[in-house]
Amino acid sequence: MRKVLLAFSFIWCLALAGVAQAQAPEAAAPPPAAAPAAAAPAAAPVPITDADIKGVASPKAEDRAQGDPAGTLTGTSADIPVGDAKVGMTVGDVVSLVGQHQIAINFVWTLVTGFLVMFMQAGFAIVETGLARAKNANHTMMMNFMVYGVGMLAYWLIGFSIQEGGVGAVANLGGTAPLNGEFAIHLFGKDWGLFGTKGIMLGGATYDVGVMVMFLFQMVFMDTALTIVTGTAAERWKYSAFIISSFIMGAFTYPLFGNWAWGGGWLATLGSNYGLGHGYADFAGSGVVHSIGGVTALAMAIIIGPRIGKFRRDGTPNAIPGHDIVLVLLGCFILAFGWFGFNPGSTLGASANGNLRISSVAVNTMLAGMAGSFSSMYYMWMRYGKPDASMTGNGFLAGLVAITAPSGFVNPMASVIIGLIAGVLCALSCEFVERKLKLDDVVGAISVHGTNGLFGVIAVGLFADGKSNYGGSWNGVPGSVTGLFYGDAGQLVAQLIGVATLLGFVFTMSFVLNAVLEAVWGHRVTAKVELAGLDIPEMGALGYPEFALKPEPVLAD
Amino acid sequence: MRKVLLAFSFIWCLALAGVAQAQAPEAAAPPPAAAPAAAAPAAAPVPITDADIKGVASPKAEDRAQGDPAGTLTGTSADIPVGDAKVGMTVGDVVSLVGQHQIAINFVWTLVTGFLVMFMQAGFAIVETGLARAKNANHTMMMNFMVYGVGMLAYWLIGFSIQEGGVGAVANLGGTAPLNGEFAIHLFGKDWGLFGTKGIMLGGATYDVGVMVMFLFQMVFMDTALTIVTGTAAERWKYSAFIISSFIMGAFTYPLFGNWAWGGGWLATLGSNYGLGHGYADFAGSGVVHSIGGVTALAMAIIIGPRIGKFRRDGTPNAIPGHDIVLVLLGCFILAFGWFGFNPGSTLGASANGNLRISSVAVNTMLAGMAGSFSSMYYMWMRYGKPDASMTGNGFLAGLVAITAPSGFVNPMASVIIGLIAGVLCALSCEFVERKLKLDDVVGAISVHGTNGLFGVIAVGLFADGKSNYGGSWNGVPGSVTGLFYGDAGQLVAQLIGVATLLGFVFTMSFVLNAVLEAVWGHRVTAKVELAGLDIPEMGALGYPEFALKPEPVLAD
Amino acid sequence: MRKVLLAFSFIWCLALAGVAQAQAPEAAAPPPAAAPAAAAPAAAPVPITDADIKGVASPKAEDRAQGDPAGTLTGTSADIPVGDAKVGMTVGDVVSLVGQHQIAINFVWTLVTGFLVMFMQAGFAIVETGLARAKNANHTMMMNFMVYGVGMLAYWLIGFSIQEGGVGAVANLGGTAPLNGEFAIHLFGKDWGLFGTKGIMLGGATYDVGVMVMFLFQMVFMDTALTIVTGTAAERWKYSAFIISSFIMGAFTYPLFGNWAWGGGWLATLGSNYGLGHGYADFAGSGVVHSIGGVTALAMAIIIGPRIGKFRRDGTPNAIPGHDIVLVLLGCFILAFGWFGFNPGSTLGASANGNLRISSVAVNTMLAGMAGSFSSMYYMWMRYGKPDASMTGNGFLAGLVAITAPSGFVNPMASVIIGLIAGVLCALSCEFVERKLKLDDVVGAISVHGTNGLFGVIAVGLFADGKSNYGGSWNGVPGSVTGLFYGDAGQLVAQLIGVATLLGFVFTMSFVLNAVLEAVWGHRVTAKVELAGLDIPEMGALGYPEFALKPEPVLAD
Repeated sequence: MRKVLLAFSFIWCLALAGVAQAQAPEAAAPPPAAAPAAAAPAAAPVPITDADIKGVASPKAEDRAQGDPAGTLTGTSADIPVGDAKVGMTVGDVVSLVGQHQIAINFVWTLVTGFLVMFMQAGFAIVETGLARAKNANHTMMMNFMVYGVGMLAYWLIGFSIQEGGVGAVANLGGTAPLNGEFAIHLFGKDWGLFGTKGIMLGGATYDVGVMVMFLFQMVFMDTALTIVTGTAAERWKYSAFIISSFIMGAFTYPLFGNWAWGGGWLATLGSNYGLGHGYADFAGSGVVHSIGGVTALAMAIIIGPRIGKFRRDGTPNAIPGHDIVLVLLGCFILAFGWFGFNPGSTLGASANGNLRISSVAVNTMLAGMAGSFSSMYYMWMRYGKPDASMTGNGFLAGLVAITAPSGFVNPMASVIIGLIAGVLCALSCEFVERKLKLDDVVGAISVHGTNGLFGVIAVGLFADGKSNYGGSWNGVPGSVTGLFYGDAGQLVAQLIGVATLLGFVFTMSFVLNAVLEAVWGHRVTAKVELAGLDIPEMGALGYPEFALKPEPVLAD
Repeated sequence: MRKVLLAFSFIWCLALAGVAQAQAPEAAAPPPAAAPAAAAPAAAPVPITDADIKGVASPKAEDRAQGDPAGTLTGTSADIPVGDAKVGMTVGDVVSLVGQHQIAINFVWTLVTGFLVMFMQAGFAIVETGLARAKNANHTMMMNFMVYGVGMLAYWLIGFSIQEGGVGAVANLGGTAPLNGEFAIHLFGKDWGLFGTKGIMLGGATYDVGVMVMFLFQMVFMDTALTIVTGTAAERWKYSAFIISSFIMGAFTYPLFGNWAWGGGWLATLGSNYGLGHGYADFAGSGVVHSIGGVTALAMAIIIGPRIGKFRRDGTPNAIPGHDIVLVLLGCFILAFGWFGFNPGSTLGASANGNLRISSVAVNTMLAGMAGSFSSMYYMWMRYGKPDASMTGNGFLAGLVAITAPSGFVNPMASVIIGLIAGVLCALSCEFVERKLKLDDVVGAISVHGTNGLFGVIAVGLFADGKSNYGGSWNGVPGSVTGLFYGDAGQLVAQLIGVATLLGFVFTMSFVLNAVLEAVWGHRVTAKVELAGLDIPEMGALGYPEFALKPEPVLAD
Repeated sequence: MRKVLLAFSFIWCLALAGVAQAQAPEAAAPPPAAAPAAAAPAAAPVPITDADIKGVASPKAEDRAQGDPAGTLTGTSADIPVGDAKVGMTVGDVVSLVGQHQIAINFVWTLVTGFLVMFMQAGFAIVETGLARAKNANHTMMMNFMVYGVGMLAYWLIGFSIQEGGVGAVANLGGTAPLNGEFAIHLFGKDWGLFGTKGIMLGGATYDVGVMVMFLFQMVFMDTALTIVTGTAAERWKYSAFIISSFIMGAFTYPLFGNWAWGGGWLATLGSNYGLGHGYADFAGSGVVHSIGGVTALAMAIIIGPRIGKFRRDGTPNAIPGHDIVLVLLGCFILAFGWFGFNPGSTLGASANGNLRISSVAVNTMLAGMAGSFSSMYYMWMRYGKPDASMTGNGFLAGLVAITAPSGFVNPMASVIIGLIAGVLCALSCEFVERKLKLDDVVGAISVHGTNGLFGVIAVGLFADGKSNYGGSWNGVPGSVTGLFYGDAGQLVAQLIGVATLLGFVFTMSFVLNAVLEAVWGHRVTAKVELAGLDIPEMGALGYPEFALKPEPVLAD
């Protein structure tokens, strides 16, 4: 107990240091970007003349054919597409290409980071499978594999439309203008956006290059939320029920909250409508992605019940160790790699509008993950005498989850503090879920994603330092997101409304939908199947048909 | 049987819906990009003056030294390299840098996507090893590991030169001017390009930054084709024979067809020479990469024969399950991740010339993979009672293979249809290869890559919707690639000529070369080695020296 | 023996060919980039008028809302942010955005490549774990997992400051101006930079977007060096000692040499101060990263001693094979994937200043890896009769290590030669370390990273061909880095001074620090723990609790 207190004291001191730093008088806000030149009186058109271009830029064709090892003859004015070859290059050609570059850079950034997020599915798959038992390896992998497809199908059919169908033209992507339908009700004198309506199956006008970027990036985020649930309910979830449940979540549960937070819905407009900071601010989805996954996992854990043998007759838990720690930690690395897409990519762009802050987002992300792995490892070491690998991995992920919402708004020191808190919070929450709530969460997803997702949402309202820019406003409110420690209590209120919505609405919706599914279809395999392992009865093949396994240990009763 | 019919009916209805949509009257083609401003009379050079720049852009050095957390002081006019410090910034400096950006963006895109493609080697390696038996794990991994090096060596020495040595200056890459030698014969009044001649060992003028991008990207594609064969012939292929066979394929077989399709050869000019649509159109290589791999795998399966025990005396097959499903599905995720390089990277650029369609290519890719996993899973579930993991993974890959050629030319709905067909086609083809052809294909590569590669080539000729741009022409034919369902029957003919060439020429060439190798060197290990497992006899070490294995099951005779 | 000679002869001939090519008369240097236009007399500000822009560029909003499948209406002049809407777009707006693009492109490149380097941690983790025994799998993975966090913590607290705190404003990143404190002593008439002072915990002015990019990229490099040591000392290193030792290395040992080579310290200024070529030139860290890791691993191997059973009473070694070859080769692929970040990312940019040479760097990297895998495989095959998988993987990594320093300065042929030498050197060095030095290096890290890191440093001084540009100078010396074979003996001297510093200073510092740690804390677990496997005693859980293992083989005594 003394050691726990010591550990907390350590974190507390760091937190105080952070607050002290936070409360120091602020330097003046950064100057606004690029005030324009004084307007000149109307001038004649400005063609670019031969003299301008030829004097400086293009290497001769015969030189190029000799090769350019240094790269100094490649990429010159000769590479600017000319609209009309007879006229030659004009100011219009150059200016058009500069505009194209603005969007191309942002496309490249958002697509590449989206690819990284997609790869997180592989990380989740092997973390969850590694933490399950060998007799369920095929089943756990298949849930994690098909959750990618099930979610994508649901999202393509309807989910994307609900979430982003009314988001409007996103400037960083050159406009996603066809996404222009948001269903809203008028309440308390303001519009409350409820869901979007455009973009079903990416047909009609939404067959658009900007919309496609948006779909890809939002789709992989949604899929991340879905895969969280499979970890909690592993080793006993009927495969068919998993498919139906995941489809519903990808089609409705996730997109609804997603719309409210990111698609122009009512949470996003709490700032512009009611003056609560910048409205609910969730940079990359501690709330939208991880909390939704976590509270749905909580609902599933309640409905599906614990694995046979997890709890003794007296209610105390048995430890059921995962079968492959190498898979678990390799998966954590894959997740951390993908998180460099998750958070920094959430700007949806790299150029202009303050988007260069992607570097700060990336550094915050890795610092928080590091801090989370340390504090959870240290906590376990002090409390149980060993630096537990599973919990260290989970603390690492908890730090990443917790920094996801604030990553765009806080500084490195705050990121470390958030990570340190997250790691310990993860370990405490795991104990609470198992010992007090008597729930069986195979991988600890409720704690990693649920508890720390909510903590991340709150952390924005505390630690946001008002130094970010993002085009000079956020959620339509001019200025920068600022938390309580830097003077804006309203932001914290907006965040707490988000937390209340996640716990009140999303949890309830998930619980009801999955309870109905339990009644009409049934979530759980039979006891016989569970004891034998789900691989043969559910999937028709073992995960490891050739490896000899030790006799299963007898769990205390 | 009823369920199979049901499954087909479902796909058929979707297909009809797609065709109906396809045959609806077309909206007007998108307006041409950026018509130029009217030419102005020759004007005096336009230097950019202090007043222009200083009024707007550069932060003071002392402000920068205070730090820029928001990223609003970084990346300004001060970051434009000035040719002559005494003169200061000129229009020429700015225009040159805009040209540089055009190429730099395209380099970044093509290199990063190329890296992703290279990483697919890891995916193939563990998919194939997971589907093999534990006693051959070392050998299967080593084939997959060294195929990267063997292919690269062959391609560097000669293959790249044959394939791309006459491709000419690729505009997206700022010109690959030194690749200017294509050997062609004159036939039927037209030039028929047969192979390229520049770029051997990247020496001489081809030591060039643009050529290097081209080499890297094409090399990793070629290697993907080579690694397909190792999956079919695993568990019995002599390691030395594998090296020789792969070298020949990377040096000659692949590059020849690659030249005809992508290097300016005769298939690419079927449109400009003979009016067959846009000539053979294969956006990212369903034909070039996957079909070549698949038909070579078919040739090898015939030559090397089935594994001992695969077929009973009566010719019916025994199932030989893979030893690690976790590896298989993890590998599928790695492949899907890499496919985001494979297809979207095949534009060779992200900016201008309609390259923003990379987003559409990426979305098409993931939708087709999803659809393939669903339809193969559903087919197996209905037919055999369980959602088989291996076939679900293979269906997923089949969808990705089939969308590879059309990904740049079709819409999302068509991608889903193509994927649905591919998944079922994969399962049917696997049954056909095993039961009718009596061939032993360890991983199903003939069906995944061969059958579905050819289907993908044909799908271009059916589903291409004429909405893409790519600089306003494809293969030198103005306008957009358009399939039969959207009105261009000629394109389908060009595609079928490609299919005929793959089946007629490439298969024959592969078969003959490998049959010669069989005669002079021998492909197959001895029965004793095969039964013991190839790891110790061929590689000198077990893949898993410490894990206890179950006794090998007795296969029905 | 004959076969060894044959192998060497083959390499020697290739090397001669390279030298011959190198000594051929040089073509004229590439022309300088873009000479500026003649200066015009001061002119009035140049607003861009309606006529210039409207005629060419922006699609109508109503057209955009119809969707843009081809991407031809997206990314136009309408996407250029306008400073003052009332004035409209000005030359200043356009020029500012061009400057922003220059930095945004470089940020995207450096961040994405940095992410790839971070992912190498996963590769190292499974290579090392696969080469260890199953009973130590948890412990080996945890060392590799936490080395990421331990290193990051040390580097964030102090290491980064020491290494880069005085690097000054890096132009490619738009200036890292707050890193402006280098502590130097005045010696022999010149300043000798010793360590930097700014950037502690990324606080104060270093909360800056450019500094963040620098931190991320340098951090993941440092972590790569740290993880090398865990491979050598695996299976017997006390977990707590590993943490302390790694912390010290990330905080002090690595950053000091890093400062001298890359942070503006004395090795970098050997050229500008004393005329030795361009000073110590280490493009991506054969010396900074790999040699530091390798010589520290050597120090640890001496201090911690061999595993029980590694050496017989007569001093001859027993082979202790790794437990999972699939992990080893999968890890090698992950490392090769990450190396595409490691080397090409080391430009810290993709646009202007000769940065397009990233493509050449990438190709050199993959060619050297290929060559290394071949020559080590061939050497083992000839010498021991089998193509050993572990050594082939190590030869592959050795090629990558050796090309790391020269990758930016040499041509493809030289890269192949360097790789061929590296692969054989790796195998010879492994034999030397084991048989002559009697050291136990579990994964061969001393040879892969130490020996070949030093060879890579020297290779710059031999093979650099003077064809690179990088803004026209390197380490402040105009012109291109050129090795002995191309005429600059001074460069080789600078490289040898680097090698001497690594062997003399870094090795000594590492040895002393770790020897002190041995005295006060102890590096090694007890013999009982080592024999039982470290997983339960050190980490509290087995890596594979369910898999049955074969009885441990009795090692010859």
